Amino acid sequence: MKYLFNSLIGVFVFDNQFNPVEEVRYKEIKEYKKGESWEKIKKKYKDGKEVPEEKLGKVLDFLRGRKYFDSFYLMNQELTKQKIKEAVSPDLLIIQAISSVEELTKISNILAKRLREWQGWHLPELGERIGDDEQLAKLVAGKSRKELMKETGIKESMGAELGKEDEEEIKKLGKELLGIYKLKEDYEGYLKKTMKGFCPNLLELAGATIGAKLIELGKGLKHLALLPASTIQLLGAEKALFRHIKTGAKSPKYGVIVNHLIVQRAGKGEKGKAARRLADKLSLCARLDYFKGEFKAPEFRKELEEKFIKNK
Amino acid sequence: MKYLFNSLIGVFVFDNQFNPVEEVRYKEIKEYKKGESWEKIKKKYKDGKEVPEEKLGKVLDFLRGRKYFDSFYLMNQELTKQKIKEAVSPDLLIIQAISSVEELTKISNILAKRLREWQGWHLPELGERIGDDEQLAKLVAGKSRKELMKETGIKESMGAELGKEDEEEIKKLGKELLGIYKLKEDYEGYLKKTMKGFCPNLLELAGATIGAKLIELGKGLKHLALLPASTIQLLGAEKALFRHIKTGAKSPKYGVIVNHLIVQRAGKGEKGKAARRLADKLSLCARLDYFKGEFKAPEFRKELEEKFIKNK
Repeated sequence: MKYLFNSLIGVFVFDNQFNPVEEVRYKEIKEYKKGESWEKIKKKYKDGKEVPEEKLGKVLDFLRGRKYFDSFYLMNQELTKQKIKEAVSPDLLIIQAISSVEELTKISNILAKRLREWQGWHLPELGERIGDDEQLAKLVAGKSRKELMKETGIKESMGAELGKEDEEEIKKLGKELLGIYKLKEDYEGYLKKTMKGFCPNLLELAGATIGAKLIELGKGLKHLALLPASTIQLLGAEKALFRHIKTGAKSPKYGVIVNHLIVQRAGKGEKGKAARRLADKLSLCARLDYFKGEFKAPEFRKELEEKFIKNK
Repeated sequence: MKYLFNSLIGVFVFDNQFNPVEEVRYKEIKEYKKGESWEKIKKKYKDGKEVPEEKLGKVLDFLRGRKYFDSFYLMNQELTKQKIKEAVSPDLLIIQAISSVEELTKISNILAKRLREWQGWHLPELGERIGDDEQLAKLVAGKSRKELMKETGIKESMGAELGKEDEEEIKKLGKELLGIYKLKEDYEGYLKKTMKGFCPNLLELAGATIGAKLIELGKGLKHLALLPASTIQLLGAEKALFRHIKTGAKSPKYGVIVNHLIVQRAGKGEKGKAARRLADKLSLCARLDYFKGEFKAPEFRKELEEKFIKNK
């Protein structure tokens, strides 16, 4: 009677006294994964059987020798590295991208505020007229005060005429801000592209920003797909939810999906219901995407829009 | 007997019944400021005298007429505009620049953290080796994973090999970060230049960052020059100071000047004393600069260094 044992570092055959009879060592983790040698050995020793649990101690005693230690160490390291590599899924890329987009939004707000203030000493009338930050940055980045006055028809300004150098610094800030807007746009595009391949249903129904945020808050698509719809409905409202539990304050009706068009444009008394139905469908989308199902999101969207958006 | 009255809109001469005798109207605010017409009138009516306070009511009754209203309104507006223009002093430019530098520092920290995280999925060994954020950004912005591994001698990575597109997004973030570092450097240069012309003593002794911060916290050079040295010593420590007053916590020894070399490198028991002496000299610097005095800061600096920095 022979005992057969498969391990990370190779296949071992023992006699019934647990003395080694044969060993086939693996050179790479691939061989362990393929399992060819293991099959061969099982064929070769037809009467052999795998080591039963109560005898495992004996095998481990044998393998504990210094001789095998290095191999186990190396193979284990190899396996860990592979697992880490595999852990970098589109989920992570999506989470990185949406976090970047959110940070860039914050950053652009800081810089836009600074630009408005700085530029305001110079030509305050411009900031008053141009409400859109990006447009203001574009104007300031490219044009001198004189050109700006001409273009926008400001005849007289209360601002101080700064030196050319001072003006140059304001222009630079405008240019940097434009760079930030550009990068943000890039990342939004990248986000959409990555999501299109990875979770088309979620992208279609939730949109890139809300969809990515759900993946982030749900800790990945897999986990999101396993969450109940009622949890998805409240993702992003954790603070309000805990406040509700602790202090009995009003329970929140929605988390990040509050910004979704379906909820936004639902009638006043119907927002909660719309959120619930939307969350149901989003949960379905996440499951469809995770299990590589059909592209059903356009149907869902149509259904919801017809139900909740009256004044299209 | 004639009464002479000078105003924003012109010079008026009244007889002793306060009927108008002559008026010279100003077309521009400049004329009012020059005062030529006023001098002329005073010469012409040698026996005339300025309207005494108790008779001002009569003059105002006269000027209150609709006829003069528009002129007063326009001239006043003109004067206000000029005052606003004059309010844009180098102080304000310095405050804008130092605020920008501080914001860009915060922003670069946010982006650097994101770059490290994102890049870490890809080639974590690089982030471990390169502690300096700017250097990391430079490497990541310009080079592919393969090139980076070659250049830094990383033979094997635990990170995932991302697609070319994903890698491209990380590179973009690196580039943007470099742009932010560049802008920050620009603004630091601009700050120094502006301060060199406006407050050379403060720049020399405090350095650009601390000096500008003092101007910001002191609400301008003029106001800073008028503050007692003990206040300058604590500028930027307002929170700790109020905590001290309210709760009797330890009183703060220094505000923003805590980062100054003199305080940093003073012996352990001498930091408070060093801060006090430094604040004395900084106060002198602010006064010298405000009153356009000599360039004494190098002397002050030498004196302080000799006293407090032993192990030069």
